[in-house]
Amino acid sequence: MNNLVNTFEIPYYAVIFASERTEGDNGYNEMASKMVALANEQKGFLGLESSRDSNLGITISYWKTLEDITAWKNHTAHQVAQKLGKEEWYSQFSLRICKVERDYLFKSK
Amino acid sequence: MNNLVNTFEIPYYAVIFASERTEGDNGYNEMASKMVALANEQKGFLGLESSRDSNLGITISYWKTLEDITAWKNHTAHQVAQKLGKEEWYSQFSLRICKVERDYLFKSK
Repeated sequence: MNNLVNTFEIPYYAVIFASERTEGDNGYNEMASKMVALANEQKGFLGLESSRDSNLGITISYWKTLEDITAWKNHTAHQVAQKLGKEEWYSQFSLRICKVERDYLFKSK
Repeated sequence: MNNLVNTFEIPYYAVIFASERTEGDNGYNEMASKMVALANEQKGFLGLESSRDSNLGITISYWKTLEDITAWKNHTAHQVAQKLGKEEWYSQFSLRICKVERDYLFKSK
């Protein structure tokens, strides 16, 4: 799941989630895997890119419409994960909802 | 530079750059530092978040307007870096220009 995704039909939407973790795993990695699998099953889900180093994690999910993003935000299992995220896993995070207006993919020969 | 940036006045723009690297440094890290410093000096630059793990790197820069993004794309020193990126540093990358419509920042107590 942690590789580049393709481009999609314009316009579509990106949710940029950037986070700084607390110490320790505390069930984070198991839940993160579950949420990626569950997101893949949702209506309008296009793809997901994720990277984490010692300072910062960035996860971007791509969706067809804003309504799809709202439905995923309100999904019961995702709500549980969001609550634990605030209580346990993240010292801080930012969330941005964006409309993708242009995209470009480069592959070397 | 690799920590969370703040939220900004809506709307603003995000450039999502996701990349897979070639083997070796080949001058990449020195150039990356220079480009971050140079981006910071550009008109309309708001901030930058970056994370890289063994699979994928994601760098997001935030800008006031689309014109600011175009000016940065066309900056002479940045053009040199873009050319080297395609020739030397990246096996593939994607670039997405997005309008940020909503943002949210969480900090634990």
